[in-house]
Amino acid sequence: MRFEEMWRDLAPVGRSAASGGYFRQPWTSAEGELRAWFAEECAARGLVVATDGIGNQMAWWEPDAATDAPGVLTGSHLDSVLDGGAYDGPLGVASALAAVDVLRERGFAPARPIGVGVFVEEEGSRFGRACLGSRLVTGATTWDQAQELRDRDGVFLADAITAAGLDPTAGLVDLGRVGTFVELHVEQGRDLVDRDVAVGLASEIWPHGRWRFDFTGQANHAGTTRMEDRRDPMLTYAMTALAANKQARLAEQRATFGRIAVEPNGTNAVPSLVTAWLDARASSDDALTSLVESIQRQAEDRAGRDGTSLEVTAESVSGSVVFDPGLAERLAGLGGWPVIPTQAGHDAGILSDAGIPTAMVFVRNPTGVSHSPDEHAETADCLAGVEALADVLAELAGPA
Amino acid sequence: MRFEEMWRDLAPVGRSAASGGYFRQPWTSAEGELRAWFAEECAARGLVVATDGIGNQMAWWEPDAATDAPGVLTGSHLDSVLDGGAYDGPLGVASALAAVDVLRERGFAPARPIGVGVFVEEEGSRFGRACLGSRLVTGATTWDQAQELRDRDGVFLADAITAAGLDPTAGLVDLGRVGTFVELHVEQGRDLVDRDVAVGLASEIWPHGRWRFDFTGQANHAGTTRMEDRRDPMLTYAMTALAANKQARLAEQRATFGRIAVEPNGTNAVPSLVTAWLDARASSDDALTSLVESIQRQAEDRAGRDGTSLEVTAESVSGSVVFDPGLAERLAGLGGWPVIPTQAGHDAGILSDAGIPTAMVFVRNPTGVSHSPDEHAETADCLAGVEALADVLAELAGPA
Repeated sequence: MRFEEMWRDLAPVGRSAASGGYFRQPWTSAEGELRAWFAEECAARGLVVATDGIGNQMAWWEPDAATDAPGVLTGSHLDSVLDGGAYDGPLGVASALAAVDVLRERGFAPARPIGVGVFVEEEGSRFGRACLGSRLVTGATTWDQAQELRDRDGVFLADAITAAGLDPTAGLVDLGRVGTFVELHVEQGRDLVDRDVAVGLASEIWPHGRWRFDFTGQANHAGTTRMEDRRDPMLTYAMTALAANKQARLAEQRATFGRIAVEPNGTNAVPSLVTAWLDARASSDDALTSLVESIQRQAEDRAGRDGTSLEVTAESVSGSVVFDPGLAERLAGLGGWPVIPTQAGHDAGILSDAGIPTAMVFVRNPTGVSHSPDEHAETADCLAGVEALADVLAELAGPA
Repeated sequence: MRFEEMWRDLAPVGRSAASGGYFRQPWTSAEGELRAWFAEECAARGLVVATDGIGNQMAWWEPDAATDAPGVLTGSHLDSVLDGGAYDGPLGVASALAAVDVLRERGFAPARPIGVGVFVEEEGSRFGRACLGSRLVTGATTWDQAQELRDRDGVFLADAITAAGLDPTAGLVDLGRVGTFVELHVEQGRDLVDRDVAVGLASEIWPHGRWRFDFTGQANHAGTTRMEDRRDPMLTYAMTALAANKQARLAEQRATFGRIAVEPNGTNAVPSLVTAWLDARASSDDALTSLVESIQRQAEDRAGRDGTSLEVTAESVSGSVVFDPGLAERLAGLGGWPVIPTQAGHDAGILSDAGIPTAMVFVRNPTGVSHSPDEHAETADCLAGVEALADVLAELAGPA
């Protein structure tokens, strides 16, 4: 089946020989290769792909008869977190193309256009804004806001896009004809494993966000400075990381410090500055606010004791997303699939927030591990996902 | 006075406009500029400088009459920690040159050769081995051992040296004629402030070292992974950093985690690996061993609870250095200066360990702050240091 060929073609792109994980950051050569791959796969299916000024891509399978009926878009993203897995993103793109193949093999004739699409910088791994491509397309983030973003090396967004051979002033893909969006994604968690099913539909996305914590102290000699004379921001950070974990555990929420930058980061110097990023998620908007506030309060208390100071900046906050419940129930009924929540953000959440009826199809993840080289899905489950997506598209794009 | 002119010339070299601190890492362009500056200052005094294959420099002021008498070497280093201060190192080099000027103004005629010298990579800020230049010259570290070292970018030592226009196979400066070594250094601490004196002599260096802690866990999605399913090495690290601080405080020792590297270091990924470097110092070799063991034990206990693992590697350990007590007392008597211990490593410790009678002159630091852009010494104290060093050299190189 074509899915397995596509999966083999994708396997080496941006893969680290050391870890086996993927480095498919946006506007890098690895991502450029993936964009070219997508255009070729579309062309091989007779679909004309439009690539917009920032690298979003969309191609439409038009019905034989002219129609003004709103279309059904499916797809996902091709970028990865740093040292990520193979499935998060690309599974949804390859499955979208494979579902088109399945529908054609079935002799299906769409009554509405079916689109396959790719959104850039879904992970926010380079510029720190998750779902940047879909946010710009829907207007959830404006270009004026995005222009201020810099990556870890200080490169501005527009310069990164231009360096990738794109023209950020050339306009964005048009969602005007998208009547429904369906995103297939590997499950990030073990809900489907526990339920012993290969496929599920999404009910909602937990509210979540990223907050930058800047802990400022005073650089000093690590050997000669008496412990009681120090203003060491590493200690304030360390206590905060432990407090965040404890708060989230007690409240059955999620809080993680996975990224840190230290100045001057020398073995024999007490740091002057520790910057760390909090990823937090909770089952309601209020619970998320309360979680972050309680972590910040504990951090400030400790800063007072350490003689350090703390500044907290919200870098991106996404409220709760509830996917169209009628749509989820209708599609779940096609295969008797369960409808489950997720804690991960997705482009589907951005499109849903923009008022587009949206659904997500999840494919079972045997360990639940994601954002890791260990991320995996069984081929049989991936193929079940393709069939399920084809069923969903047939339901949505078939004759009324 | 020439000292102040030299200090003005040095001020801009390798200085960060952002922080005001210094980035004078070995075998970079900033350090190359400092090496050229030293050669010019020697030449201006009619001293012929020898630069060895790795960048150590030495120049001798020969007595008028030929002599086989062992010489007196003075000097320090020009490299800095990342974002360091202006004084740590360069004060000893500029003071050495200025002391030669003072002796000549006094009409002093040396009976023994007086050398001025610079050792490379004293801070270990690039290759992680403090006092690398003096260790190689004395044989405390062999070239075979040093060849394995890489910097943060993976560059091997020999390649970094070659890229700086040096030839690491060209041999090292000869300590054969060094009968005594004297290093002047800004005090890193507040002992002289508390005693209200501008100058002191060193009694000993505390034993100290660097240990790399590799905390290994499992990368995973920061949003979807239940807190209880994680193996997060950041938590093990955070507890270890707090434990190290507490242990050192209780025992009146020093322990610091100032440098950290995280994989993959992404906001929405639980890390797979946290590497952090412990800088530890104690008043005796046994106390240091016991301090590090107790930190490691607590880290391993926590790793067991976090489902992570820990590997600890000693990267460099320097035993206690007691400077020649008779020499220190004799020189302290010249100015009624106090004799005080230090917790910081120095090239003087390496030369002392190699059997060369060695002394250190400290110059008062009004805040005790060091390894920081805030490091400072008053000009009047620096000039008092130059006079004191001239007195010491006159005592050691004068007629018997």
